[in-house]
Amino acid sequence: MQDFPLTITHVLRHGMRIYRDSEVVTYEGGEYRRANFSEVGIRASRLASSLKGLGIQADDRVATFCFNHQEHLEAYLAVPCMGSILHTLNLRLFPAQLGYIISDAEDKVILFDAMLAPLLARVREQMRSVRFLVPIGEGDTSSLQGIAEIIPYDELLPSGTGDFEWPELDERSAAGMCYTSGTTGDPKGVVYSHRSTFLHSMGVCMAPEISLHEKDKSLVIVPMFHANAWGIPYAAFMSGSDLLMPKQYLQAEHLVRMIVGERPTTSAGVPTIWNDVLKYLQEHPGIDISSLKVATAGGSSVPRHLMEAFDEELGIKLIQGWGMTETSPLAALAVPPRSSSPSEAMDYRSLAGRVIAGVEVRVVGDDGTILPDDGASVGEFEIRGPWIAGSYYHDQSGERFHDGWLRTGDVGTLDSRGFMHITDRSKDLIKSGGEWISSVDLENAIMSYPDIFEAAVIGVPDQRWDERPLACYVPAEGKDVKPEEVLEYLSDTVARWWLPERWAVMDEVPKTSVGKFNKLALRSKYINGELQVVEIPR
Amino acid sequence: MQDFPLTITHVLRHGMRIYRDSEVVTYEGGEYRRANFSEVGIRASRLASSLKGLGIQADDRVATFCFNHQEHLEAYLAVPCMGSILHTLNLRLFPAQLGYIISDAEDKVILFDAMLAPLLARVREQMRSVRFLVPIGEGDTSSLQGIAEIIPYDELLPSGTGDFEWPELDERSAAGMCYTSGTTGDPKGVVYSHRSTFLHSMGVCMAPEISLHEKDKSLVIVPMFHANAWGIPYAAFMSGSDLLMPKQYLQAEHLVRMIVGERPTTSAGVPTIWNDVLKYLQEHPGIDISSLKVATAGGSSVPRHLMEAFDEELGIKLIQGWGMTETSPLAALAVPPRSSSPSEAMDYRSLAGRVIAGVEVRVVGDDGTILPDDGASVGEFEIRGPWIAGSYYHDQSGERFHDGWLRTGDVGTLDSRGFMHITDRSKDLIKSGGEWISSVDLENAIMSYPDIFEAAVIGVPDQRWDERPLACYVPAEGKDVKPEEVLEYLSDTVARWWLPERWAVMDEVPKTSVGKFNKLALRSKYINGELQVVEIPR
Repeated sequence: MQDFPLTITHVLRHGMRIYRDSEVVTYEGGEYRRANFSEVGIRASRLASSLKGLGIQADDRVATFCFNHQEHLEAYLAVPCMGSILHTLNLRLFPAQLGYIISDAEDKVILFDAMLAPLLARVREQMRSVRFLVPIGEGDTSSLQGIAEIIPYDELLPSGTGDFEWPELDERSAAGMCYTSGTTGDPKGVVYSHRSTFLHSMGVCMAPEISLHEKDKSLVIVPMFHANAWGIPYAAFMSGSDLLMPKQYLQAEHLVRMIVGERPTTSAGVPTIWNDVLKYLQEHPGIDISSLKVATAGGSSVPRHLMEAFDEELGIKLIQGWGMTETSPLAALAVPPRSSSPSEAMDYRSLAGRVIAGVEVRVVGDDGTILPDDGASVGEFEIRGPWIAGSYYHDQSGERFHDGWLRTGDVGTLDSRGFMHITDRSKDLIKSGGEWISSVDLENAIMSYPDIFEAAVIGVPDQRWDERPLACYVPAEGKDVKPEEVLEYLSDTVARWWLPERWAVMDEVPKTSVGKFNKLALRSKYINGELQVVEIPR
Repeated sequence: MQDFPLTITHVLRHGMRIYRDSEVVTYEGGEYRRANFSEVGIRASRLASSLKGLGIQADDRVATFCFNHQEHLEAYLAVPCMGSILHTLNLRLFPAQLGYIISDAEDKVILFDAMLAPLLARVREQMRSVRFLVPIGEGDTSSLQGIAEIIPYDELLPSGTGDFEWPELDERSAAGMCYTSGTTGDPKGVVYSHRSTFLHSMGVCMAPEISLHEKDKSLVIVPMFHANAWGIPYAAFMSGSDLLMPKQYLQAEHLVRMIVGERPTTSAGVPTIWNDVLKYLQEHPGIDISSLKVATAGGSSVPRHLMEAFDEELGIKLIQGWGMTETSPLAALAVPPRSSSPSEAMDYRSLAGRVIAGVEVRVVGDDGTILPDDGASVGEFEIRGPWIAGSYYHDQSGERFHDGWLRTGDVGTLDSRGFMHITDRSKDLIKSGGEWISSVDLENAIMSYPDIFEAAVIGVPDQRWDERPLACYVPAEGKDVKPEEVLEYLSDTVARWWLPERWAVMDEVPKTSVGKFNKLALRSKYINGELQVVEIPR
């Protein structure tokens, strides 16, 4: 067979030629801006050519600091295909982390949304490697003066040619990188290769329920700075699916307007966004969102009641997926076995996911022994495959790897059909009197109470039991929910000894930069006495 | 990223575990025999282990000479995953070709349907490399005595273990081989690697309209000895689709019975089979074949009237695909751009196909220049990609390759959206008075006449024009169609100078071993005066 390399360059060529009429549509807060894949490909060529003109070379890191829009997609295509490395910077990082990441990756160029200049300016001291700052769109970039040469995107692009000669690349060469948003220690860089990105894109295109095709239009809510936007941009160029880009307009009102106006068939985002969308649609009945058939949710556990409400009230199948920055990210999708009854199906859909083709998962005990996939043995999930990280950038310690497998840090059981039931992050398990309590299961149980909007559970020190759960929750808008009534509700659904004694009613659960419950922040609030905790002795 | 090899072993593990309940169903002429993927995987393990016990080593060729059934699937899995090479022998070859192929590949083992023993016995002289003959099922194998040790499949299997330790394989190691059914010269061997098979399987799983998933059941009419049965067996193990295997029961009556009884959702076969199925259903109205939504046809051009009849009378979307043994085979699928009107869509569906992701196609002129993809420039199709042959077995001449691209031998135009319009095999073009006539276009035009069942056109010598078309056709059953009426019909649809002067009405167009029109045989019939030719001067 031919030694044909698996590169993003092939994906670019395929999309801009075979699906030349497919579109990327960028929402501008009311208006839409459109370009077809052929035009995007030509602009990517101009971008690569211009960057090369600036002296950017193979393996140089070119960063983006952008919302989801057409120009971000152009960078997704241009930078890897010219042989450089696309480094997507997370907009929601704390300055210390952002600065660390730019300096660790030694970014040479940063393409950024001009309106975000103030966020970048806060880390000017850590930008010593940066030679060029390329603002996109409107915004005051004066705060960035003196850091590096500033060349607006619209001025940079015309200097490049529309038929750049893309270099022939080794499929194992680096294509992109993304740092994990680790809640402990410094963020770690994950480097994607052309091969891994190509294969992951095929994995996304063929995944059950997702199956992107030319007839689709995908509303990409998950940020492009977050693990390749779950692979959708590249999968779209492979499959011809239109892309609908929401920019910074991630509020439910805007998202619903996009769904009504552009009629996407599929979408992807974190559960909290879908919760907001559901709430908005409940408050504004009669809106036609019938184009949207399937939406993927991931990043944190998807509450069962949310999936049920999407099924029953919206007619949208909300599919839970599981992955990490280290897994490109798609590794599992909670699509039930076809033989399932409706209630079994919902049980399966409530799990983290079912391993997809190309990826292998196992469960490993504390002592390193491989546990059976019997749906009962609890251990840490380990994962391997052609789009799974084998190391971290600038880190040869190998401590997160075990015999060629990535240690995910997620804990739970695996059943014989490849369904992963994640009971906790290893560091989030609560050990009460020598027995494990799953904070995730407890959260889901609390969130299934009708008048609760969201809930998070952490372990807190306890004299008698060593550790006990603290339940924090946010009542639905306008509702007054007493811990006592939740406790009574819970007593029918969870084991007696799981029932929390400590409760905190909040306005909002703190979130990480990628929208997950920030349990680290919750814990420090608790320790610092910033939570109003009610104790209900058993 | 991890250096995880792309192997069939992963596909085997994935299918037998994640889709353990998916089934392979073998039709036994009335009854069905069932095994789930887990059982098939365990039996594949036993087969590999037993073959190893016989001394079969890595890179040894293990041949199959079988119809489509469960045991053939077990060999598809066991042989490559143990590191040996699966060589699928074509049941319909002439003895000289079959003998040549067995001896050229130096097959060590042949697994064969016992009922086919007499066909094998005819080439006993060419089986010097063969050590073991493994008959499957019922049949008299006495004619094979003395060639090699005969061990029935059912006796061989129990000697192996159900948890064979599959070796770790290099993704570029050979997995399978298949000889082209070339109509000129000796057949040429194409060697598939684990990598090419893995990637091709993903390509099949994600292909538009095909998109195999667990909810599917695939009726595999295309023979497993013919270019990997278009990749469906491996794609099924990747996606969880059930497999329905028709064995030797390829007559329309049996196929329809299988569709009614087992309710497959998808199928694949050559156009002549679909023609037979259509005819049978027209003659037996009221049969419920509603489960079948999509069927793929390939191997030869799919007549437009056949696709229209499938649309209108059966409610089945018949999709034309294009590929060759050398292309694994899936390379193009005639799925129209989404913006097409119904009549445009049928125009697109009548083309050979639209290039799928992973594959690149170009058109090259006689002098080797690359022609534009403008839908007008005619040249030979050249193709490249990770599942396209880069050489032939035992042949280093390289004459079918051009600068890393495979020369397909098919001639036509390529449009800007990647649609291939094949006007002819390069050797089947008719050159009349210095101008090219497409025999394929002419055949399609003739076959669009309502009362014609099939038609083939060849070029024959002509004193004045050097070469002219001879039109051969088979009237629909019970119909009497005169060449004069076809000629009159044609005069409205093809250029005046294309209209044939020579006509032959036949009972059947001779076919090659894989069901294509055998134009070589037609030409020699003509030369030997075996055709009744009517001349209608213009």
